[in-house]
Amino acid sequence: MKLSPRLIEEAVDRALAEDLGLGDATTEAIVPPGLRARGSIVARKKGVLAGIEVMAAAFLRVDPGLQVELLLADGAKLEPGSVAARVEGEAASILKAERTALNFLQRLSGIATLTSCYVEAVAGLPVRIVDTRKTTPGLRLLEKYAVVAGGGHNHRINLADGILIKDNHLAALAGEGLTLTEAVARAMQNAPHTLNVEVEVDSTEQAEEALAAGAHILLLDNMSVEDMRRVVDIARGRALIEASGGVTLERVRAIAETGVDLISVGALTHSAPALDIALDFETV
Amino acid sequence: MKLSPRLIEEAVDRALAEDLGLGDATTEAIVPPGLRARGSIVARKKGVLAGIEVMAAAFLRVDPGLQVELLLADGAKLEPGSVAARVEGEAASILKAERTALNFLQRLSGIATLTSCYVEAVAGLPVRIVDTRKTTPGLRLLEKYAVVAGGGHNHRINLADGILIKDNHLAALAGEGLTLTEAVARAMQNAPHTLNVEVEVDSTEQAEEALAAGAHILLLDNMSVEDMRRVVDIARGRALIEASGGVTLERVRAIAETGVDLISVGALTHSAPALDIALDFETV
Amino acid sequence: MKLSPRLIEEAVDRALAEDLGLGDATTEAIVPPGLRARGSIVARKKGVLAGIEVMAAAFLRVDPGLQVELLLADGAKLEPGSVAARVEGEAASILKAERTALNFLQRLSGIATLTSCYVEAVAGLPVRIVDTRKTTPGLRLLEKYAVVAGGGHNHRINLADGILIKDNHLAALAGEGLTLTEAVARAMQNAPHTLNVEVEVDSTEQAEEALAAGAHILLLDNMSVEDMRRVVDIARGRALIEASGGVTLERVRAIAETGVDLISVGALTHSAPALDIALDFETV
Amino acid sequence: MKLSPRLIEEAVDRALAEDLGLGDATTEAIVPPGLRARGSIVARKKGVLAGIEVMAAAFLRVDPGLQVELLLADGAKLEPGSVAARVEGEAASILKAERTALNFLQRLSGIATLTSCYVEAVAGLPVRIVDTRKTTPGLRLLEKYAVVAGGGHNHRINLADGILIKDNHLAALAGEGLTLTEAVARAMQNAPHTLNVEVEVDSTEQAEEALAAGAHILLLDNMSVEDMRRVVDIARGRALIEASGGVTLERVRAIAETGVDLISVGALTHSAPALDIALDFETV
Amino acid sequence: MKLSPRLIEEAVDRALAEDLGLGDATTEAIVPPGLRARGSIVARKKGVLAGIEVMAAAFLRVDPGLQVELLLADGAKLEPGSVAARVEGEAASILKAERTALNFLQRLSGIATLTSCYVEAVAGLPVRIVDTRKTTPGLRLLEKYAVVAGGGHNHRINLADGILIKDNHLAALAGEGLTLTEAVARAMQNAPHTLNVEVEVDSTEQAEEALAAGAHILLLDNMSVEDMRRVVDIARGRALIEASGGVTLERVRAIAETGVDLISVGALTHSAPALDIALDFETV
Amino acid sequence: MKLSPRLIEEAVDRALAEDLGLGDATTEAIVPPGLRARGSIVARKKGVLAGIEVMAAAFLRVDPGLQVELLLADGAKLEPGSVAARVEGEAASILKAERTALNFLQRLSGIATLTSCYVEAVAGLPVRIVDTRKTTPGLRLLEKYAVVAGGGHNHRINLADGILIKDNHLAALAGEGLTLTEAVARAMQNAPHTLNVEVEVDSTEQAEEALAAGAHILLLDNMSVEDMRRVVDIARGRALIEASGGVTLERVRAIAETGVDLISVGALTHSAPALDIALDFETV
Repeated sequence: MKLSPRLIEEAVDRALAEDLGLGDATTEAIVPPGLRARGSIVARKKGVLAGIEVMAAAFLRVDPGLQVELLLADGAKLEPGSVAARVEGEAASILKAERTALNFLQRLSGIATLTSCYVEAVAGLPVRIVDTRKTTPGLRLLEKYAVVAGGGHNHRINLADGILIKDNHLAALAGEGLTLTEAVARAMQNAPHTLNVEVEVDSTEQAEEALAAGAHILLLDNMSVEDMRRVVDIARGRALIEASGGVTLERVRAIAETGVDLISVGALTHSAPALDIALDFETV
Repeated sequence: MKLSPRLIEEAVDRALAEDLGLGDATTEAIVPPGLRARGSIVARKKGVLAGIEVMAAAFLRVDPGLQVELLLADGAKLEPGSVAARVEGEAASILKAERTALNFLQRLSGIATLTSCYVEAVAGLPVRIVDTRKTTPGLRLLEKYAVVAGGGHNHRINLADGILIKDNHLAALAGEGLTLTEAVARAMQNAPHTLNVEVEVDSTEQAEEALAAGAHILLLDNMSVEDMRRVVDIARGRALIEASGGVTLERVRAIAETGVDLISVGALTHSAPALDIALDFETV
Repeated sequence: MKLSPRLIEEAVDRALAEDLGLGDATTEAIVPPGLRARGSIVARKKGVLAGIEVMAAAFLRVDPGLQVELLLADGAKLEPGSVAARVEGEAASILKAERTALNFLQRLSGIATLTSCYVEAVAGLPVRIVDTRKTTPGLRLLEKYAVVAGGGHNHRINLADGILIKDNHLAALAGEGLTLTEAVARAMQNAPHTLNVEVEVDSTEQAEEALAAGAHILLLDNMSVEDMRRVVDIARGRALIEASGGVTLERVRAIAETGVDLISVGALTHSAPALDIALDFETV
Repeated sequence: MKLSPRLIEEAVDRALAEDLGLGDATTEAIVPPGLRARGSIVARKKGVLAGIEVMAAAFLRVDPGLQVELLLADGAKLEPGSVAARVEGEAASILKAERTALNFLQRLSGIATLTSCYVEAVAGLPVRIVDTRKTTPGLRLLEKYAVVAGGGHNHRINLADGILIKDNHLAALAGEGLTLTEAVARAMQNAPHTLNVEVEVDSTEQAEEALAAGAHILLLDNMSVEDMRRVVDIARGRALIEASGGVTLERVRAIAETGVDLISVGALTHSAPALDIALDFETV
Repeated sequence: MKLSPRLIEEAVDRALAEDLGLGDATTEAIVPPGLRARGSIVARKKGVLAGIEVMAAAFLRVDPGLQVELLLADGAKLEPGSVAARVEGEAASILKAERTALNFLQRLSGIATLTSCYVEAVAGLPVRIVDTRKTTPGLRLLEKYAVVAGGGHNHRINLADGILIKDNHLAALAGEGLTLTEAVARAMQNAPHTLNVEVEVDSTEQAEEALAAGAHILLLDNMSVEDMRRVVDIARGRALIEASGGVTLERVRAIAETGVDLISVGALTHSAPALDIALDFETV
Repeated sequence: MKLSPRLIEEAVDRALAEDLGLGDATTEAIVPPGLRARGSIVARKKGVLAGIEVMAAAFLRVDPGLQVELLLADGAKLEPGSVAARVEGEAASILKAERTALNFLQRLSGIATLTSCYVEAVAGLPVRIVDTRKTTPGLRLLEKYAVVAGGGHNHRINLADGILIKDNHLAALAGEGLTLTEAVARAMQNAPHTLNVEVEVDSTEQAEEALAAGAHILLLDNMSVEDMRRVVDIARGRALIEASGGVTLERVRAIAETGVDLISVGALTHSAPALDIALDFETV
């Protein structure tokens, strides 16, 4: 995924409106125009960079006269002290944009960093770490971009670009007397032909039914590692297998070793702590 | 703070556009119109509720015919199993809105829950736990609302409703040969009379200079507990004292016991994990 | 696909802004307030109805006091004289909303009508008539909705919910020395697992290469009916086959009889004439 | 009419959001960054060009680094093979913007082409071919611009920039016991002095009444050619005469020869088929 | 002109965002929820009411639970003490909406009041007081509505709904060697047939040239009363005459007595002082 | 306060949409493309300049090819004939943008001019002339910027960046049996610590109560000059004193001489007449 100019503009405008929309009472009161400065964007902790172009856009939107030099690209490994970018120009402009620029960078790098931990934990195994739709409202595309920067892959972007029959769908249909098999048949019949059909199952029996129904992907919900392995044995060759639910860093390698194709982790986007990145400031 | 109808509408519309803007391929393919269901919003973990009205608005925006019953109000303590709300109506509508509704509730309740942990950690002491501007881009007001739901207080909403002279401002002025004292004087002279002047200091010497300059609030940046106590001793009666930087749950009570008036915690908004809240679904 | 309230609101608001945003100089000059009238939405030509809810929304947005009664649902067959809806209330409001309401209804019903002609032309054959991305800028979802109302199916909504390797993609990769086989392999490796991989081919040789590479769907571009049949013979069981290019009403049944699974028709959205539907007006 | 920068930007942004807002799964999966290409915008059919600047804006919005060279201007005659523009740069960017750029160009050129057919059909006669408000919702200004590119003229842009008393207005007033004469008098009295008063009539008697009432323009609705001629005879010198209703290419010259000043054709915008224009692509 | 629901919504939302978008720190800190109150909208000065529906919308947007009773309609004469409306409900809601509601009402009533002074000054004479395009950016339609509420008429809404050849247009054409007569001919030839052609002239000679060229309306720019009379004598019967420039309340009747048809007054919208209207508040 | 690029863009886009959104029928009909001209922005009256960058943005938004040279900066004193800026380029573009550009400049300079009259009237006295929230809906930030350009200071931007307990708040609380003292205590306890607490009082008794309660600022509402002096005597050293209500240019110096710190004047924004500034036009 590449971030489009329009997506970046809209995200930056909205964030700047929140922080700077009514002006910066402090900077305007005390920092004289014409004073020049330089800022360095420096990692304080180890991690993976994401959002560097959004950060740059925030500075340039506040003051198109600033000069922003990107030293690292998204996906770069950061050590404490790594300098990701430099910005130079009007001191007041740098100070006004600082918080908004860093808020993007810290959050997106936080997601990339957590993702990379999961990816490293399964290194060498033929499995994808994928995200979910459990993203921060309003930031979905940016957060999914950060997952990719961290080495992960994306699951559905939204409810329209993938078929996923979940437990609640099955519960709804059960109320009509319809089985999982019938649900899959309906999906095959009615959904766009460009989409695969994925079914959430929580037992090997359900998995077998879904496979028999022709599901292209099985989502194993909160299964034990043993059961996952069993489903993989049964399914291999007929459907992709996705493990989901309670996937911790401690447990992820054991899950991957069952042979599943995909492991989805909601925490990548809903619970990643911000990465500590700061702006070191000096006048020039 | 009370969430305005317009704020809720805009946040919900933006989030629904992300998830449901192009339709729900699964639900539309398999769930028949007319099928009715009931969903219960149930906490899976202990925590504090925030965002219940935003959640309700998400369901109602997808289908104004749904009936949403709020059983708990924001700020309520949640135990595993606590039911915060019920929604009843067209099954397809509940399924379409579910993820967006929960994404708001989980994130905001996550913030409220982390805030409440800090607030409880300083219970009985005359100190406010306050947030920062380190919020998720696009969600500032909602996140600051969640901090209040968790028992915290708000710091500045944006750069316009408070004067805070930070280290980088002082560094900028130093380049002009201006002292902290002169910075405070400028702020007093130029800034709106409705705002207090706060100054970030990182030593007792700086704190003394700021007090002498007439600052209304001192922000102690990453000081030791001993230094904090010293500043409180020096200042008491002349300025409010805010502790900031590296405030962990383990350390917060010790900080509060120094007698500071405010403790600001960036993690409340930039690193709170989502609270696990789910929708239990049944047909009716 | 079901039209969401927000989608309808935005489309109606934009259209009303174009026509009525600055007022209605005629109606305001000559039609007295308080005068009541009734309008009937009547087909002047044979066709298929689409957009009735959008039409209703246009009347109600101009005047929430109007009463709109829907007599037919989208997808209904229309004969000359068929009455699709009635609207009653303030005469001035009906006159102001008339053109905007009809513009939606005429265009969407035009698309549904043309689609239904194609669908009827292949009646009894196991083939889907599908649309393309050749839609009117700004109306994509509404137009794809109209295709479904006319009995058709949707192809990709946008560039994100389907993989389609077209001739220009292959030309681009050829510049790098990459073959169709390698293109498919890349797509399998990098694209979201929820999406099928479709490849555009213009000869039986290319079709065979794409099948061997594992493509899930083949798009046959402007092939002769004989070549289409040949590809169907080769592929059946391994991939879905989509015919495309120069699909006229005269030719569509012959194409369908080759055994292809899908026939995509750009004209459904880019060249459907409006269906003649009018508002018969009387005072009450 | 000249298209304003803002109008173009908004139309392009909305259309790109529909097609590319969530990324281009195919191009991002298989086309490597850095690969350069050239596209030629080539007419496949005879027609008239319209929308070339909108097309250019679509490419440049996706990637400001593309170079777009316009070889023809709107209004230019196209033959099969005519090259309207060239675009060169990053191959992935050209592929991502292609469909959106062409959708604008094909639709607007379709309108210009149909308009030019009507204009040519009345060549040499002192009559204007004019459009109506039967435009695609959301595209009114662009479509009216295309009519001018095709040699036509614009009627009202919206309900505020012209007075047109239609049959339904007269029906409404008749319910109050008011005559056409009184309707015209009201319009003269109440409407802005900058606007002419036009009245729709469907008989020579009504035409005479409208002329006597002082109408500046008569709209003859679905009259026979003989009746049109009669009204022209009666009116000439006192009002402009506009023919309307059922104006086909076959019939338009006969209508023009009656001596009417204006002929309005709804089909120009509501039923013009897209003009076949394509992008020829090669790597460089 | 009638204000559309959408126009009112957008104006109110924008204004509330300015004042209340970040909450009401005072009311939220001190006014308890559940406290009920009543507010009366009372004129403090004599004038004419305009904007009462916008005012009502502001209260209801803040709190749909408020009850707003409109006692007077736009256009009503106000004396000191006149009560235009009552609002009752949650005290906090009334206090939050008060300023925004009054800002609309005071400004629009200020315009209506100044307009009514001009209208009364020419009472009994067959002349229209009309506004100009010198309106407050962003409020044009609301301000033109207020002019009508005050008894005035509207001139052009914007640059598209009237032809007005001004001195600067003539200066531009003079640079090309084109005369006023040629300018009028071009306008007749190129402009939409629904629009009259108005020409600004500053001497009787220019007026005669414009009349001879067939202009429908003459705008007399800053002419003496004697010259105006002379132009009226020359023109009567052939064109409408509009007086403009330096029209004060003292001078307007003398201008009207020259027999001009229209007098345009920029001050109606660019310099009308706000009318003093307040909210009297009591708990209930 | 410095106007942000985004604020200017949004204001200009909205205003241009009002005036030029549908094109300029006159200029497009008669002014040939390619004709070049120069415009000078000239003051016709004495005053203070404000809005020059907004004016420039309006010209450049209509045609980025125009060259705008700013000769004076906001805050500059204008005499009749002062040239504030020059614009050169396509004649049609200058004519299209003229009214929108001038509307901003005339209104903002009108505010700056009136403000400067008040500021000059209190020259030499230690008092600030401040604005209020009685601004034109939609233009608050621009109008507050103009006040600063005229030498004034800003009061609250909105309801969130200052605590001001007004008469209606006290009336509301009185209904609960709460005193002014209790209101101030609540505000201290609940409001953000960054904000001062201001209380509106209308008698010396109330002023004493507010001072005793610890209010940081007193707003004296419509007090006599004698009472103001008395409050100043009582308060000096303990709170800032703001005079408000009925502050005319005649009376403002007498008020300032009482020793109050701030004088707020609603008329600065709600009743400032536009400053007469014009565009002198010539072809080149």
